[in-house]
Amino acid sequence: MLLDDTGTCLGIGRGGRGNPVSDGPSAAAAAIGSAVGGALPASGTVAVEAIALAMAGGISFAPPDWLRDTLAGLDVHAPVSVEPDLLAMFCSGSAHLEGYGVVAGTGATAVRVRRGAVDAIADGLGWLLGDSGSGFWIGHQVARFVALDLEGRGEATSLTAGLLDQLGIVPSTETVQTRPAALNDLVQAVYGSSPLRLATFAPLAFADPDDEVSARIVDDAVAHLARALLDIADPDLSGPLVIGGGVAAQPRVREGLRSAVADHGISGPVLAVQDGLVGAGVLALRRAGVSVDELVFARLQQTTAQVRATTGG
Amino acid sequence: MLLDDTGTCLGIGRGGRGNPVSDGPSAAAAAIGSAVGGALPASGTVAVEAIALAMAGGISFAPPDWLRDTLAGLDVHAPVSVEPDLLAMFCSGSAHLEGYGVVAGTGATAVRVRRGAVDAIADGLGWLLGDSGSGFWIGHQVARFVALDLEGRGEATSLTAGLLDQLGIVPSTETVQTRPAALNDLVQAVYGSSPLRLATFAPLAFADPDDEVSARIVDDAVAHLARALLDIADPDLSGPLVIGGGVAAQPRVREGLRSAVADHGISGPVLAVQDGLVGAGVLALRRAGVSVDELVFARLQQTTAQVRATTGG
Repeated sequence: MLLDDTGTCLGIGRGGRGNPVSDGPSAAAAAIGSAVGGALPASGTVAVEAIALAMAGGISFAPPDWLRDTLAGLDVHAPVSVEPDLLAMFCSGSAHLEGYGVVAGTGATAVRVRRGAVDAIADGLGWLLGDSGSGFWIGHQVARFVALDLEGRGEATSLTAGLLDQLGIVPSTETVQTRPAALNDLVQAVYGSSPLRLATFAPLAFADPDDEVSARIVDDAVAHLARALLDIADPDLSGPLVIGGGVAAQPRVREGLRSAVADHGISGPVLAVQDGLVGAGVLALRRAGVSVDELVFARLQQTTAQVRATTGG
Repeated sequence: MLLDDTGTCLGIGRGGRGNPVSDGPSAAAAAIGSAVGGALPASGTVAVEAIALAMAGGISFAPPDWLRDTLAGLDVHAPVSVEPDLLAMFCSGSAHLEGYGVVAGTGATAVRVRRGAVDAIADGLGWLLGDSGSGFWIGHQVARFVALDLEGRGEATSLTAGLLDQLGIVPSTETVQTRPAALNDLVQAVYGSSPLRLATFAPLAFADPDDEVSARIVDDAVAHLARALLDIADPDLSGPLVIGGGVAAQPRVREGLRSAVADHGISGPVLAVQDGLVGAGVLALRRAGVSVDELVFARLQQTTAQVRATTGG
């Protein structure tokens, strides 16, 4: 995103995956260069004062050498600050310097923000070590409860018909080694692709509000997300709770987090955000020495939404 | 294993991985050929009447064409019956035609045997869909509880020191993004290798009998294994409970299964087995028309142990 010092969004560009660790520095630089190029005006040059680059967790926050040539090629010259994606997400929802965030998409992380910086993190440890309550976690539970149901050992659940349909498995009365053929097909489907595909099963848990197994999975997910948040809650630090990610956007999760927070005295509104784009703008303004007050923040949110609407997403 | 019709073990051979699905038919045939060759006498030929080949679950039980040339090359000519590995495991512990088995090693499966055949199976669905209470399941729990401990969000547990030591991670007071460096190292180690490596963490859960987190993980594992067994228990079918696999061999698991079984009226002794080798011999004898009574079975167990002792394993 290109923005001016009043908080007006002037352009938005998009690129592919841009993580130098998982995608490699040159592919990441090309993707980010493509996004930056798309945000710049079609003709003429702009004098950029500061660049904020929001990236996922483990990446070193040193200035990114791997991006220097790409930016120079676009005639963009300014100091680059690499910012935690969790902080950008929080700043997409609020110009406050203190508060909390929960991101629950494929993964799950809670964050505490103090003096405009990440002050504490809970979970966000990935699908094997953590991400409790995330889309992966929910989809994994869905798959396991469906397997139990197909075995005839668990409760009957409408998740079973939903998952078999999603995987293109046609239920039948056939058996394979004393068990339903559909169970065998499920095993083949799950182990035949990446474990991370389990995250694509998560929406099924929100599909049937009358299904008790689904309800229990969602309740457990909310409890995990709320626990991560409350584990880093500081009674002396209040502020908004910003939530992001597809799971957090589900009304039952949002309401569950709202009441968990209210029960434990975290004040401030619950604000849902689409992603970290507005927050990256907030951080760029701050790095350029602009004070992001409520007026600037509101302008940034509005104009970003307008540019998004005209550029499709 | 080569055996005669009195149940005397005459030779044992070993090969590498021999699963035609996961390893490919030609590699599997080579591995099995190597094992068969090792079991045959060094000189002279033997007139084999029946061959039992015990293999893991999903494999078709049709006669294995992919093995024909290998056996012919060894001058071994006899009908091959492919048998479920679960049945061979059960038959390693008992010559009864009815009873129950629990295999808990890297995976976890319970089986009910009726009239000498597999009659019902519970779980055994692999690390993503099931295997609840298995070595993978336990190791996964170990890793997650250690991560929570390192985050400062969970109970302190001696599993943490044990796992860091196993992974060669040296605890320090350094932090990475507000969290201990050791947590970052754990994340790198876990995602830097196969998820199945988590199963190698399982022995840690049995290392410290005074650790409460370990005790809870083991209790939960036993509950899952007992549930799988009880879910297929039939009040009209009694017989021994045969247990196999490294997790089931742990005294606390064995005793836990014993009391779960006793509480629910499954009669018969609990018999631990090393693997399915003796059982494959039992099945070969039956396919050759030999009645495996207690005397034949005892001879097979004893002579197999003797040959094992002299051939190292």
